[in-house]
Amino acid sequence: MNILDIIEKKKNGFPLNQIETDYFVDGYSKGTIPDYQMSALLMAIWFKGMDEFETSNLTLAMVKSGKIIDLSGIHGIKVDKHSSGGVADTVSIPLIALVVANGVPVAKMSGRGLGHTGGTIDKLESIPGFRVEMPEEEFIEIVNRVGGAIISQSEELVIADKKMYALRDVTGTIDSIPLIASSIMSKKIASGNDAIVLDVKVGNGAFMKNLEEAINLAKIMVSIGNYFRKETVAYITDMNQPLGDSVGNSLEIEESINVLKGKGSQRLLEVIKNLGAEMLKLGKKVQTVDEGKIIIEEGIFNGKGLQKFKEIVEAQGGNSAIADDFSLLPQSKFKLPILAKSTGFLSFFDTTGLGKLATFLGAGREMKDDKIDLSVGFTFNKKIGDKIFSKEQIGEIHTNDLSKGNMALEKFKMLYSSGTEQVKSPPLFYAKVSKEGIEILS
Amino acid sequence: MNILDIIEKKKNGFPLNQIETDYFVDGYSKGTIPDYQMSALLMAIWFKGMDEFETSNLTLAMVKSGKIIDLSGIHGIKVDKHSSGGVADTVSIPLIALVVANGVPVAKMSGRGLGHTGGTIDKLESIPGFRVEMPEEEFIEIVNRVGGAIISQSEELVIADKKMYALRDVTGTIDSIPLIASSIMSKKIASGNDAIVLDVKVGNGAFMKNLEEAINLAKIMVSIGNYFRKETVAYITDMNQPLGDSVGNSLEIEESINVLKGKGSQRLLEVIKNLGAEMLKLGKKVQTVDEGKIIIEEGIFNGKGLQKFKEIVEAQGGNSAIADDFSLLPQSKFKLPILAKSTGFLSFFDTTGLGKLATFLGAGREMKDDKIDLSVGFTFNKKIGDKIFSKEQIGEIHTNDLSKGNMALEKFKMLYSSGTEQVKSPPLFYAKVSKEGIEILS
Repeated sequence: MNILDIIEKKKNGFPLNQIETDYFVDGYSKGTIPDYQMSALLMAIWFKGMDEFETSNLTLAMVKSGKIIDLSGIHGIKVDKHSSGGVADTVSIPLIALVVANGVPVAKMSGRGLGHTGGTIDKLESIPGFRVEMPEEEFIEIVNRVGGAIISQSEELVIADKKMYALRDVTGTIDSIPLIASSIMSKKIASGNDAIVLDVKVGNGAFMKNLEEAINLAKIMVSIGNYFRKETVAYITDMNQPLGDSVGNSLEIEESINVLKGKGSQRLLEVIKNLGAEMLKLGKKVQTVDEGKIIIEEGIFNGKGLQKFKEIVEAQGGNSAIADDFSLLPQSKFKLPILAKSTGFLSFFDTTGLGKLATFLGAGREMKDDKIDLSVGFTFNKKIGDKIFSKEQIGEIHTNDLSKGNMALEKFKMLYSSGTEQVKSPPLFYAKVSKEGIEILS
Repeated sequence: MNILDIIEKKKNGFPLNQIETDYFVDGYSKGTIPDYQMSALLMAIWFKGMDEFETSNLTLAMVKSGKIIDLSGIHGIKVDKHSSGGVADTVSIPLIALVVANGVPVAKMSGRGLGHTGGTIDKLESIPGFRVEMPEEEFIEIVNRVGGAIISQSEELVIADKKMYALRDVTGTIDSIPLIASSIMSKKIASGNDAIVLDVKVGNGAFMKNLEEAINLAKIMVSIGNYFRKETVAYITDMNQPLGDSVGNSLEIEESINVLKGKGSQRLLEVIKNLGAEMLKLGKKVQTVDEGKIIIEEGIFNGKGLQKFKEIVEAQGGNSAIADDFSLLPQSKFKLPILAKSTGFLSFFDTTGLGKLATFLGAGREMKDDKIDLSVGFTFNKKIGDKIFSKEQIGEIHTNDLSKGNMALEKFKMLYSSGTEQVKSPPLFYAKVSKEGIEILS
């Protein structure tokens, strides 16, 4: 076998087989295939794509490059969840509390934020004492005892993905559906769960800018999941505006708790209800999604979700009193009101720009090793289609640096538009992809 | 400027401008752009191509990466010649003797053979004493005194091409027309001549397998030459069979001398006459190609070409007595007759296979640093369409290793076919490309 033959084969549009795929993933992980050959191959894949079978083979090869977590010590059907990344995408924490509260175990490994998107692990670290790293045995023990735990993804998982992602990042080969799909799914497969719910974001704040691309990505990920006998369901949800009302780490913990108290923003709640219902269904706790949605909603109103959240926080060493006293969370020194620039209907958000604004304030990372400030970010309480009045307060910048805060206020003005005509809110759910096929929802 | 933006731009099909092209060629030559980004860009160029203007810009950027030879000390219009590489492509040496004998100066820098194709410099080195390396001043002095000289291409020329070619060779990006064109033309431009005749080979022994590709390559090279104000004419000639009757280094020197004595093989002579006439025309010695062909032919029959060849050999330190006594050239120990395997009409040559057979015998290189044996190779005196008789001697293997020689005899059998039906000889000239356009010749 020869890497040059594999490059030529892909370049000329022929599918790669499992042996070839194993060869280049293994060789690249071990350093016998150099970066410059891998980047040529990745660019050829960017142009020629990979079919579902090839992408599943690639995922398998990547899974084999690192540790595979054994969750067989956890009782029940363990259901995982993944979001392709968005802004104010405060879904995972309240979702997991509500699913676990209803008897489906969740042993989730999450990532940190990068670029304009936030990460669950960063958000959780704003809870004083909360440990995101622990031995595997303790992780399993907590899931068995409490029902759920969320830890930082092990560095030993899918070694190939770390090297390949770093290379893709500097060679213009990030935006390839088979490479994105295998990167995401290899980590999901290696982390050992039994079923997976995927939230594929689409819109100007997502990596996927159009529905067709998002559906293609969802289709291939569902196909990979099922290939590995892990039932996988994907929702395509909107990211043409921030999902929740808060962007920033401790701010999103506050919003998570608000959701569990029945005070969350409506669109965020809808996503949580649907994904949660799907997780309950995959976990065989309900027969239908509608049934699941009712149970998730009940978990909010009867306080079981909030209670479970507190239990998980305590089990992972965190101070659960934050749930009743937000002042125990990291707080920024300054809170600057965001006033509407004119009267009209909110018509447009530059959602990626808003994500970058949070990074500018210090809530996110441009580079993997950047330090972040857990207390900063912003809130706002209007969505597309809402009427706003000139000078009305529509949000708040949270900052520890007044001049940065004032710059953020100016930037914010450029990141939304309003007009005199009433604009319809964009749909929230576009499609659902499962082994049954594609269901268009909007 | 950022290499990632340049990769993205090309990947998405937008043309690169001069500033971007200079940036990546200069950065790669100097090592500030790493191999893995360059290989991703080269693969994107492989897929998206480059238009004529981009390719000229790339050529210019490459020229600037190394030394540019100043031939202004040579009187007259200096005309260069380049072949895209073939088998038994014994054109340059007799051609240059004949052109120089007719008053057009030729200051040629040539390369060595690689893979299945031979190189003029290797062939010349089989002449005892012949120096292919010398100071630039001496090179210019010889051209002024004798009319012509052929030396090995300076290592300082087009530094970027050496690095880029080595990278393309291991990343599946050799077979890209703009990359081939800029690689060839950058060296032609940097070597300082005033006009260029290109011989683009097409067929199963050439890099270009089909006429359309060959014409595209010729068009872009002619356009680059003219962009640099060096009038350039390209002929597309056949490489579906070896051009001359000899493959190997000292064997091709013998054939070169035979051509100058009026005893060369017909197809080889035709190419020499046409390219020579074109060079005389570019050098303003004749008005038309037909006029030039008559003068080239006269140069053979009146012995002026052979005389000029001897003068050049002497001027470069070689023993010109070889022209009258081939036993002064490196001779192989064994000469094994090649006998026709059956009676019929010769119908097919695996021309690349024949080139590789010469390499197998030791006449060529698989790797750049391989040692070669100047005495070995093979001759054969039949072309497609010729009648051959079973057991008739149609050629001779020249070897210093009997077992290799016997293996070569067996291999040779697999590298040609004959049949009962008379086959037409393939055309020799397919097209001519010049600033006037494309002229189809067959």
